[in-house]
Amino acid sequence: MNQKLKKDIDYVVENSIKAVLPDEAVTRALKNFSYGDGKVILVAAGKAAWQMAYAAKGVLKKLDGGIVITKYEHVKDKIEGIECYEAGHPVPDENSFNATKKALNMVSNLSSNDTVVFLLSGGGSALFELPLIPGEELQDITKQLLASGADIVEINTIRKRLSQVKGGRFALACAPAKVFSIVLSDIVGDPLDMIASGPAYPDYSTCEEAKDIVRKYNIKLSKQAEELIGKETPKELNNVETHITGSVRELCRAAASNCGKLGYKPIILTDELCCEAREAGSFLASIAKTKSKDNEKLALIAGGETVVHLTGQGKGGRNQELALSAATVISGNKPIAVASIGSDGTDGPTDAAGGYVDNETYLELCDKGINIHDVLMNNDAYNALKAVNGLIITGATGTNVNDVAVALIDN
Amino acid sequence: MNQKLKKDIDYVVENSIKAVLPDEAVTRALKNFSYGDGKVILVAAGKAAWQMAYAAKGVLKKLDGGIVITKYEHVKDKIEGIECYEAGHPVPDENSFNATKKALNMVSNLSSNDTVVFLLSGGGSALFELPLIPGEELQDITKQLLASGADIVEINTIRKRLSQVKGGRFALACAPAKVFSIVLSDIVGDPLDMIASGPAYPDYSTCEEAKDIVRKYNIKLSKQAEELIGKETPKELNNVETHITGSVRELCRAAASNCGKLGYKPIILTDELCCEAREAGSFLASIAKTKSKDNEKLALIAGGETVVHLTGQGKGGRNQELALSAATVISGNKPIAVASIGSDGTDGPTDAAGGYVDNETYLELCDKGINIHDVLMNNDAYNALKAVNGLIITGATGTNVNDVAVALIDN
Repeated sequence: MNQKLKKDIDYVVENSIKAVLPDEAVTRALKNFSYGDGKVILVAAGKAAWQMAYAAKGVLKKLDGGIVITKYEHVKDKIEGIECYEAGHPVPDENSFNATKKALNMVSNLSSNDTVVFLLSGGGSALFELPLIPGEELQDITKQLLASGADIVEINTIRKRLSQVKGGRFALACAPAKVFSIVLSDIVGDPLDMIASGPAYPDYSTCEEAKDIVRKYNIKLSKQAEELIGKETPKELNNVETHITGSVRELCRAAASNCGKLGYKPIILTDELCCEAREAGSFLASIAKTKSKDNEKLALIAGGETVVHLTGQGKGGRNQELALSAATVISGNKPIAVASIGSDGTDGPTDAAGGYVDNETYLELCDKGINIHDVLMNNDAYNALKAVNGLIITGATGTNVNDVAVALIDN
Repeated sequence: MNQKLKKDIDYVVENSIKAVLPDEAVTRALKNFSYGDGKVILVAAGKAAWQMAYAAKGVLKKLDGGIVITKYEHVKDKIEGIECYEAGHPVPDENSFNATKKALNMVSNLSSNDTVVFLLSGGGSALFELPLIPGEELQDITKQLLASGADIVEINTIRKRLSQVKGGRFALACAPAKVFSIVLSDIVGDPLDMIASGPAYPDYSTCEEAKDIVRKYNIKLSKQAEELIGKETPKELNNVETHITGSVRELCRAAASNCGKLGYKPIILTDELCCEAREAGSFLASIAKTKSKDNEKLALIAGGETVVHLTGQGKGGRNQELALSAATVISGNKPIAVASIGSDGTDGPTDAAGGYVDNETYLELCDKGINIHDVLMNNDAYNALKAVNGLIITGATGTNVNDVAVALIDN
């Protein structure tokens, strides 16, 4: 193993994950926050809501009230001045509706001098919801849509019109107060209208589209629901400022910045990686090998979420497969390393966050009689990497913003 | 289809292939040729030997003799002042030995003022050979090595020592004359000691290694062969100047240059691509999509040779699968195109050189009811691309230097 490269990768991994932890991410986003003359109200919804609110509370110089709506068993402690509620996920329940109603009450009757700090994370679609129709009818319509084969975009087009908060309506309820929205993104590409169905983001679907969907799938609606389908969602929101934070894009940027600190010139190839893990490893390694001839100290970064098609019974994960498959290509005299990690610290059903290989790994595996092709066919990257100290173990990190792969060329 | 992007890709494909045709490649390499006071002798060996010699004859201002050794039915016409011979490939025969002997006679007794223009292409290993032992024994030893499971490097380590021309010995035979060597590479990575077993390239294997291989596989040798195994090959050749031409690296450079002429900033990602075709397409498309946000007019280039694992009965090739799999990722409003071609003009068992897709292709396929995932599972990229005019057809090009994929971002 090239100890120098391993040390550099460990540094990059540790510090890049730090940068996308909810605390760090919220703190960083709040640096852009400007206090008005009026009140500051905090509304946090999603699986990371408590953590985000806790971090915001530590940074905000002023707070006139707040509410957290998160998943059961996700409230870790009291936060002074903030009411904390737990509710149903992935299916919304009465607690979701009640807590969301409290949030709406808290932001009604605000003035244009006031600001709502809105902290949104994954899971918000179920946790932050107050339907305009009875909960039972919403459930029935959702079931009809799912049974009919409607896709997620079509389902959301309908659901946004039946909700008091989705599709930009929460931001509308806050008006004339300003909304400072911080979104912790766990979807590659950061589609703001998709994350928690975009409570503070303009909705570009139209009533016509919604009606077409109802016709197309022959959805049965009450008179009330039918009227709601005909009411337009906000297409423009002038009171909202949005900061996406802790996304895979920020994870890539953090990796680039940390590679830069070690003297590597960073290049972010993509933050939307989506192919088969082992082939991504091979492609990334080919780029690294070609670039290694330029005699430059370089870091190549690719973030996203690869996939693994299981063909065997072994132990491993997509990041471990990506790294392992790079080993053959980068084998040689040029000091090159490839590592890949899941930002949540858990790669597949293993205790490793990902894997590390360098230009010496292939021969080390050969010495131990381990054939990379056979290992990948058996999806057993964990044991192969373990044999050459190639596992990256971080423990659970407390965030989940997809994966990042890094190739270092130490020319 | 984005007509502007298709036109740009057609321009890049046409002109990049032109740049790696044997004629162009030889002509370009000979621009570096300096005439001495003495004689100029031409020796061409390999499958493209006739084409290379024909091109050289048209450029060289002086020629005092020459010989072409190529595959049966590969001599297209007489070339004035050059003897043309056809011989066995992939197994060398008496015609290989006789023609190679004539070549050796032609370069013996030259002075240090003379130059041998040595034109080498794929297939030279069999076509350019004169063993130091009887042909039958060479065949027997090769069979023993193959049966024992020796790899290609081990086999070459033995064969170089039993040959009058391999492993740098042809260049040694030319000395004190200079050797101006032009190598048309068809192996990714251009390993000069591997192409035709390197008649004009130093051999870094040692007698000790050769003896170890004989022991390891228990190879039976005549006394004569045993003595030859103990004779060292040249480790340094001071009379040789080598120009690699027409390799996938040059294909990538030509693609970069032609993209540049159209105003795209070219980036060669790799010239050693070696992963599964469809995953390479997806990865390349992800990079293109991420880079499209930079508002730069950009060309991404990846050369090499991808693979396809057949799962269906359809019609297609690796370049067509690479292009088709990119369509989903680049679908959208940003003008992006991805194309991939085989430089020989034949991608898989089809009449197409490769495939083209752009940001509009995905929806065009949807309109025709074509599902990319199903098409790839059936390895039927040809018919899917045909339906949207996405086939690139060049006809046989007369060269074979692997594949190149190009992504254009027309910001």
